[in-house]
Amino acid sequence: MTAAHFSERRLKLADMLPGIPVFLASGCDRYRNYPGHTYPFRASSHYLFFGGPNRSGHVLLILNGEATLYRPAPDADDEVWHGPSESLEELQSRYDFKEIKNLEELDEDLSTLGVDEVLALPSSDAATNRFMEKYLGRVPDLDEDPDVDLVDAVMELRRCQDEAAQSEIRRAVQATVELQRVVLGASRPGVTERELRGELDKVMASNGWQPSFNPIISVAGEVLHNPFYTHTLADGDLLLVDCGVEVESGYAGDLTRTVPVNGQFTSTQKAIYDIVDKARSESLRQIAPGVHFAELHKTASLVIAQGLVELGILKGEPEELVEMGAHALFFCHGLGHLVGLDVHDMEDFGDRIGYEDGEERSSQFGLSNLRLSRELEAGMVVTVEPGYYRIPALLNGPLGEKFAHVLDRDVLQKYEDVRGIRIEDVVLVTDDGYENLSEALPTASSEVEQLVGSLSPV
Amino acid sequence: MTAAHFSERRLKLADMLPGIPVFLASGCDRYRNYPGHTYPFRASSHYLFFGGPNRSGHVLLILNGEATLYRPAPDADDEVWHGPSESLEELQSRYDFKEIKNLEELDEDLSTLGVDEVLALPSSDAATNRFMEKYLGRVPDLDEDPDVDLVDAVMELRRCQDEAAQSEIRRAVQATVELQRVVLGASRPGVTERELRGELDKVMASNGWQPSFNPIISVAGEVLHNPFYTHTLADGDLLLVDCGVEVESGYAGDLTRTVPVNGQFTSTQKAIYDIVDKARSESLRQIAPGVHFAELHKTASLVIAQGLVELGILKGEPEELVEMGAHALFFCHGLGHLVGLDVHDMEDFGDRIGYEDGEERSSQFGLSNLRLSRELEAGMVVTVEPGYYRIPALLNGPLGEKFAHVLDRDVLQKYEDVRGIRIEDVVLVTDDGYENLSEALPTASSEVEQLVGSLSPV
Repeated sequence: MTAAHFSERRLKLADMLPGIPVFLASGCDRYRNYPGHTYPFRASSHYLFFGGPNRSGHVLLILNGEATLYRPAPDADDEVWHGPSESLEELQSRYDFKEIKNLEELDEDLSTLGVDEVLALPSSDAATNRFMEKYLGRVPDLDEDPDVDLVDAVMELRRCQDEAAQSEIRRAVQATVELQRVVLGASRPGVTERELRGELDKVMASNGWQPSFNPIISVAGEVLHNPFYTHTLADGDLLLVDCGVEVESGYAGDLTRTVPVNGQFTSTQKAIYDIVDKARSESLRQIAPGVHFAELHKTASLVIAQGLVELGILKGEPEELVEMGAHALFFCHGLGHLVGLDVHDMEDFGDRIGYEDGEERSSQFGLSNLRLSRELEAGMVVTVEPGYYRIPALLNGPLGEKFAHVLDRDVLQKYEDVRGIRIEDVVLVTDDGYENLSEALPTASSEVEQLVGSLSPV
Repeated sequence: MTAAHFSERRLKLADMLPGIPVFLASGCDRYRNYPGHTYPFRASSHYLFFGGPNRSGHVLLILNGEATLYRPAPDADDEVWHGPSESLEELQSRYDFKEIKNLEELDEDLSTLGVDEVLALPSSDAATNRFMEKYLGRVPDLDEDPDVDLVDAVMELRRCQDEAAQSEIRRAVQATVELQRVVLGASRPGVTERELRGELDKVMASNGWQPSFNPIISVAGEVLHNPFYTHTLADGDLLLVDCGVEVESGYAGDLTRTVPVNGQFTSTQKAIYDIVDKARSESLRQIAPGVHFAELHKTASLVIAQGLVELGILKGEPEELVEMGAHALFFCHGLGHLVGLDVHDMEDFGDRIGYEDGEERSSQFGLSNLRLSRELEAGMVVTVEPGYYRIPALLNGPLGEKFAHVLDRDVLQKYEDVRGIRIEDVVLVTDDGYENLSEALPTASSEVEQLVGSLSPV
């Protein structure tokens, strides 16, 4: 990212909101157990999008395409504890500000502009909202005039990735491929999930990367967002690895692979793995501008339903099973989401970003978890990530009861060595179709077997 | 830690606050860039002290020595995404609760008790304060009745570590020794600070440990809390490593070592290193109940002033130099701090915990950074961490000007290969003296040279 990229984005914002000042807070430090121990700071994605250093307590004030940066006044004591601040020249050359000022001057500048004219975005962090309240006299609100105009403008600018963003996402995905290769390469029976997390963290830190979300590394793949690392990999297990690198500019990668811990799928594992991989490839190849993402989700659901009918786990017509939502017993989440500066891009805006104006989430279980339900546009980056999960809470709960008549539990029992499989690629929508950004990491069952344990133990 | 330890602490609290209900919030999740990406959760240390699971949104209500745990009601959807919750039996056996209830019942139980009677502690996290306001109708305040009674009681209970806590701190320090050995062992010219951070993170994650603070791994040791990892280790550099493990119970370790990157101190480096190590050992061996920590700080300051006078860097009588604060040109922080569930224990209480009633921080530069200024008591755990730093912001600023008459810049120039040295041990105050908990990690210059590069490159 160069200063010219940020200037271009600020000018586009000016076109949409001419003469209106926009206030973007980087955010406040998040305290862990006490104020001296802060989590690694990550500025708001909206602020980063328009160009500012990844530091807490900074404000970008953008007006007519020009940005002024306000930062806490550097002092000698700060230099003793935290080292010299970035120089003005360095900031200027990286971001092209109209001016760089001390935060102390912000109040007066806001008065001059007329603080009631200023638009801003709420934060998901309470302290950051308090910070904004201090300067603006109000907490910005996603649903209320006038900030909703800014929400719309930012969604419009960030929904499709500009060229600079595409290039950053490519880097993030490439880094994630490298990360996956290390984690899968270190996997073998006897290794613990914690040790694999250690390998992942080592690659992250030694490259100066950050995780774009909390990585999932688990032989209990049926827990969708498993944040714990308590198991030891055993012969016969499947390992699900879902992780992403965030590169320095803030852009995210996000890939999932599922592999046999011993390097060889059983016939039951391979049967279901191949269904999930087919769901991935069939839905992926439909991608093009104008195609509705819900259609892709439906395609994946159909492939899964059909596969499970062929195996005898589900009974009935695949179309009907999908219509009634029976496939969601096994594929219970959405096919994918937008990727950008957030791994679930702009999810802080809620369903405004994922759903077309006027569309609402379905209440049907499964579809209710679909994060993205829009027509695809060139420049969008999306994940395609079908899965199969044997989740006791679903199978033994009301959903299992509801679909008892189409479920053959005896056949399902034969596939008990399959707990959770997910395969996730990241795809750029192009003018005439798509580009799979994660092609360097194979998905075919015979190829992912080769990735396992390929690195020598350390 | 067993349930019996927590029960004992709750009974002690009841003795101090008989009949008074105490409300302890575990805290809210901290959002990174959007609500779906939370930082690894760490519950409030005050809550952990009295025994509750390390989960967000939980409340301990303690009355007359008995604790009721309130937790968000587990639901099926939560199980699909995050797996089964801890079972009631498991929670019961680990923490010995009177009852485990759903958070929905808290409001009514508080009404029954009389919500105005309930004491609570403020959080440094704004969302957690809002959470408490919802239940208590107010944000607790450190300085106001009645919560100040709870602050006093908690300080009294946590200031000296009980046996269970001592045993946890021993484990945390031992783990930190192991961590230091890995990081120092991987150090050699050509390795980057990032790569060393990678080695550290790998050991942390693979053992299931958390960092008790953001680790400092830097050849720019003169930046006291250097949070960046931008340098490559070079022949002739000193490397400063300041890191700590937090074990599962939440207790912290904290150790610093400074080593020559090539395994061999230069004569100038050794000269200053040995002064700092002498400051460490001389102040450390004064430790005993009844000794004021400010005396130890003075001893360390004197040893450093005397050493620098002997080298010719400072001119004058060591006592006078310390009196006027000239040593703080090079040793500008305090000698140490309390260690416990927070690495700077209970620093969220401000100087109430570090300073005796009625004592205030000195305004003299250097002493102004002393976090701990109390009489030592058996059971306290403290760090002893003198240092020497050549900080341009100080030497070329008003302080350098003030002490120009006692500073020989020509001699200082000869020691330009010494940027920052700190040596930090963790010490338990015993009935008749002290025990150095970090003795397993040597400090002597000849011995730390052996630690460097002792692990084969990976």
